[in-house]
Amino acid sequence: MKIKGVEHIGIAITNLGECIATLKKTFGLKESHRERIEASNVEVVFFECGTTQIELVTPTSDASPISVFLSKRGNGIHHICLDVEDIEGWLAALKAKGIELIDSEPRRGAHGKKVAFLSPKSTCGFLIELSEQVE
Amino acid sequence: MKIKGVEHIGIAITNLGECIATLKKTFGLKESHRERIEASNVEVVFFECGTTQIELVTPTSDASPISVFLSKRGNGIHHICLDVEDIEGWLAALKAKGIELIDSEPRRGAHGKKVAFLSPKSTCGFLIELSEQVE
Repeated sequence: MKIKGVEHIGIAITNLGECIATLKKTFGLKESHRERIEASNVEVVFFECGTTQIELVTPTSDASPISVFLSKRGNGIHHICLDVEDIEGWLAALKAKGIELIDSEPRRGAHGKKVAFLSPKSTCGFLIELSEQVE
Repeated sequence: MKIKGVEHIGIAITNLGECIATLKKTFGLKESHRERIEASNVEVVFFECGTTQIELVTPTSDASPISVFLSKRGNGIHHICLDVEDIEGWLAALKAKGIELIDSEPRRGAHGKKVAFLSPKSTCGFLIELSEQVE
């Protein structure tokens, strides 16, 4: 099992419109996808940036974990998402290594991909998401 | 002028040895480069992750801006570095657009690359570095 690359970098923000304008006008990046993920209480907007994507994430309700992050520290880089194959195999292997999982089973993320978050307690204090493309 | 991609994601950490072990043993990533950047009072360790790199950054003295970040919030994702050509042209264009620059002129970063940080005040609250490969 091998990490294929960085699928995206997730950035938590309160001001979606302003951030979209900055990425487009200041850096010339192109919006590639926009989606509301009801189960996570977030809206996400993706920008292509070479082979990686920048994902802006904004909460759609106070029930979103993104709201907690934003209220603690304001806009900021929230997580790194790593592109994998066989996400179920990865989660089983990580669990066997003693890594604490936020999602013990994959759930559906943006683009219909299978995703799972790992606990930052087990990964040096920063948040890692795993993601697998569903054919 | 076009952003070529995400050159690396910078992660500020206090416990370099533990983080290196996590990225190697837990995720099977390979250490590709290690360097002490005296001018910035940091040590950096790079891991290949597809076409992007993960950079662990740890301060070598309290004079490092990384020390301030760590004392405020502990280990965490610190910045995104975007790969560009003509970094001087980029900085001039950003300045003309009213973007506040931390480095108005490029300086030498890891791998001898030309790098410059932009003020998060001008980029929605998250820290962006630009980087240009020097031939």
